[in-house]
Amino acid sequence: MIGFAPVLPPDPDVAAAARVRQDTLTKPRGALGRLEELSVWAAACQGQCPPRQFARARVVVFAGDHGVARSGVSAYPPEVTAQMVANIDAGGAAINALAGVADATVRVVDVAVDAEPLSERIGAHKVRRGSGDIARDDALTDEEAAAAIAAGQRVADEEVDAGADLLIAGDMGIGNTTPAAVLVAALTNEEPVAVVGFGTGVDDAGWSRKTAAVRDALFRARPLLGDPVGLLRCCGGADLAAMAGFCAQAAVRRTPLLLDGMAVTAAALVAERLAPGARQWWQAGHRSTEPGHRLALSALQLDPILDLGMRLGEGTGATVALPVLRAAVAALSAMATFSDAGVSTRSSS
Amino acid sequence: MIGFAPVLPPDPDVAAAARVRQDTLTKPRGALGRLEELSVWAAACQGQCPPRQFARARVVVFAGDHGVARSGVSAYPPEVTAQMVANIDAGGAAINALAGVADATVRVVDVAVDAEPLSERIGAHKVRRGSGDIARDDALTDEEAAAAIAAGQRVADEEVDAGADLLIAGDMGIGNTTPAAVLVAALTNEEPVAVVGFGTGVDDAGWSRKTAAVRDALFRARPLLGDPVGLLRCCGGADLAAMAGFCAQAAVRRTPLLLDGMAVTAAALVAERLAPGARQWWQAGHRSTEPGHRLALSALQLDPILDLGMRLGEGTGATVALPVLRAAVAALSAMATFSDAGVSTRSSS
Repeated sequence: MIGFAPVLPPDPDVAAAARVRQDTLTKPRGALGRLEELSVWAAACQGQCPPRQFARARVVVFAGDHGVARSGVSAYPPEVTAQMVANIDAGGAAINALAGVADATVRVVDVAVDAEPLSERIGAHKVRRGSGDIARDDALTDEEAAAAIAAGQRVADEEVDAGADLLIAGDMGIGNTTPAAVLVAALTNEEPVAVVGFGTGVDDAGWSRKTAAVRDALFRARPLLGDPVGLLRCCGGADLAAMAGFCAQAAVRRTPLLLDGMAVTAAALVAERLAPGARQWWQAGHRSTEPGHRLALSALQLDPILDLGMRLGEGTGATVALPVLRAAVAALSAMATFSDAGVSTRSSS
Repeated sequence: MIGFAPVLPPDPDVAAAARVRQDTLTKPRGALGRLEELSVWAAACQGQCPPRQFARARVVVFAGDHGVARSGVSAYPPEVTAQMVANIDAGGAAINALAGVADATVRVVDVAVDAEPLSERIGAHKVRRGSGDIARDDALTDEEAAAAIAAGQRVADEEVDAGADLLIAGDMGIGNTTPAAVLVAALTNEEPVAVVGFGTGVDDAGWSRKTAAVRDALFRARPLLGDPVGLLRCCGGADLAAMAGFCAQAAVRRTPLLLDGMAVTAAALVAERLAPGARQWWQAGHRSTEPGHRLALSALQLDPILDLGMRLGEGTGATVALPVLRAAVAALSAMATFSDAGVSTRSSS
């Protein structure tokens, strides 16, 4: 049985105190733009003003294969998922390089890779080998959908209990933007052509196959709009379900989280249905080039921090945004006030 | 006599090698978006692929007052410039907090503050106390314009000789967006209303006074379009002239530089006239909310890394962008290649 404790919002009194403090700092009011909003959010999430600097940021990459990848919806063969899990574990992937320079650590979780787990730890939460081909069948059974969501919950609990003060959700799975597009189309009531992009670089014929697969899955998904677990079962996949559980549980545990690209944000759309209000604990790290990503962010009312034309997944876009969040915290916690510094305030206003 | 050595472009052979290397890394081609371009630029500037991580980033804040500030074009009284120089020197300003978290160091240079220098070091390159009111008179004499440009050149030389591997130009000066708007309007052939913004937060009446001042100065500036030193003398100011010299000399010294907001970018537009090709050594850290900033960046053909609604100056926007540049370098230098990692390449193409 799937269940999330109620999500309480970040502390509104601390947010108010943070806004007041921003206006005492030695800069024109509002002049730090988005950094000011991010600093208020960080303080409210922590329940403390000024906020502490984020010191234990943790990226969790959820890996899984998708039966639909055998239908030519991706530029890469499905075996790349397992190879990339090994690459992340060895420290050679983009997320490792970017997390290293952003002072975050990386964990990869094999939820549904179509191979034996690389190690006991990586496979500790494994649900199955590959999710079903959503163009034809359900991705998961009821039991598997529940198990995958619970796996994501457990991973969030493990990380928060181990001391993470900021979580980043990442994905790795050849073909995963196809089920992600179905979830986004279903939950934003959009047509397949509006949500389907070129993923990691599929060609025009692949895009057509992908759009057809999304259309077929969406036809079966439409009756399930009010049933988030059913949606994940029918047209999601175990990795997406785990990401949804992870994003929802981060909010339950009052731990701020940065969303990454298309796959994570599609899962987050479902997570907001599983645990209403969870989105208040998230920021959108970036906007990817996938058209469905923009729609998903808009539905979550999240404005991306970065827009750098990235489309890699793995948590990379969110990890590049992490220093911007740290800059916001630093401004609110380390700047002098007008009275501290003996600086004159506005001559008018 | 103003003079800059010829600017040579960043190394095109290293850029080509960096592009080839990007396409061997374990990610879809192009999937890191802007980070890939930035990594190629960093490698070409350094003449080395893979590039070294930037380890000695230096922010230089050029401070100066402007006679036009006495005409009510700013939300703050002119004495704030000197107070903020002291605040930066004491470590309490936004740039200090942001540089601290971005692993950069900060230097403030009093070029033309209307006060005695705070210290011998800060005042070592001082040209005069406050620049003239450009709505009525020239900002500087010929000799002062030359001295201010040379001061910026010397500061760049000092920083490069001291080991800086990346420079960030910043500004501090109440009223400085007024002369900056004149320079941008003159060099982009735009009307005052298109370039004048609300600076640090002037009200509507102040905006009207500012626009009138820009119009009056622009009338005197139009005959000087082919004379960048004359433009700085007529309608710039000593701090803007020093920033122009600094940005140009960074390029001469083959040292990459991040531009900040309106004042710095206006100075950079002039610097590109003083030392053609200098812009190849620059990236635009961010886009501020000032309308003239967008025009200046467009004229320089620079695409800002961040767009966070910032409008503070001091080098703050560029400093928040610095970790994005470091992320780009980390990806190109630290990721595994497909063959290193035993990852399959694309199934098609």
